[in-house]
Amino acid sequence: MNWLDKVKWDAQGLVPVIAQEASTGDVLMFAWMNREALTKTAELGRAVYFSRSRGRLWAKGEESGHVQKVHEMRLDCDQDVILLKVTQLGHEPGIACHTGRHTCFYSVFEAGDNGAEGVWRELDPVLKDPATIYNS
Amino acid sequence: MNWLDKVKWDAQGLVPVIAQEASTGDVLMFAWMNREALTKTAELGRAVYFSRSRGRLWAKGEESGHVQKVHEMRLDCDQDVILLKVTQLGHEPGIACHTGRHTCFYSVFEAGDNGAEGVWRELDPVLKDPATIYNS
Repeated sequence: MNWLDKVKWDAQGLVPVIAQEASTGDVLMFAWMNREALTKTAELGRAVYFSRSRGRLWAKGEESGHVQKVHEMRLDCDQDVILLKVTQLGHEPGIACHTGRHTCFYSVFEAGDNGAEGVWRELDPVLKDPATIYNS
Repeated sequence: MNWLDKVKWDAQGLVPVIAQEASTGDVLMFAWMNREALTKTAELGRAVYFSRSRGRLWAKGEESGHVQKVHEMRLDCDQDVILLKVTQLGHEPGIACHTGRHTCFYSVFEAGDNGAEGVWRELDPVLKDPATIYNS
């Protein structure tokens, strides 16, 4: 069976993808791929996702320059999730998030004390102003 | 705004969740939560997912004993994906996958040489026979 057919695409023809920084293990972002995006990612060795909001392929870094070099692609036990091991290019340290942060997962849950409500606290710093990333 | 309302639940009332081993950075598994699952995870400090196949809450380890202690919960920039930092309990080394492996992401893509097709190669070892995990 073709390796692309081993992937269990969802009803929209998509599969969830986790991008993890190869050097640090940091989980950088979560996105989606369709069959064409996965094919191109394998061919190019660079992450190409499918943007659900724009309804088209999205070569990561096409606007920002924050390209992801792909070292390894893994498939999970149910064949319906992909894990990429990447190097985040274009800035040092790497910026994967459109907010100019290293990772998209910059908000950390803090439980409330004495019955107070919990909050999501933004912890990680902005490394580059998004206005200067996307001002082409 | 309540921290649960900050999460952008999908049309099914679910959010994708990535579980990452706190000590190693290994991405262990991918699952889903509904509002109740996330609430319980925060309360208990142990991962509770929503099983889409069974249509009910699924306290990770309820059958296998492979419970996940949750150290940290993170939310991404779009508020629609959650990242858990966990310790995988119940076996040493930790088993997150129902196949008896450390992680669900045990299949690695190998590109084909000279025009041959690529394949997903199962690389990581089975640490415990699933028949002995789920024989209760």
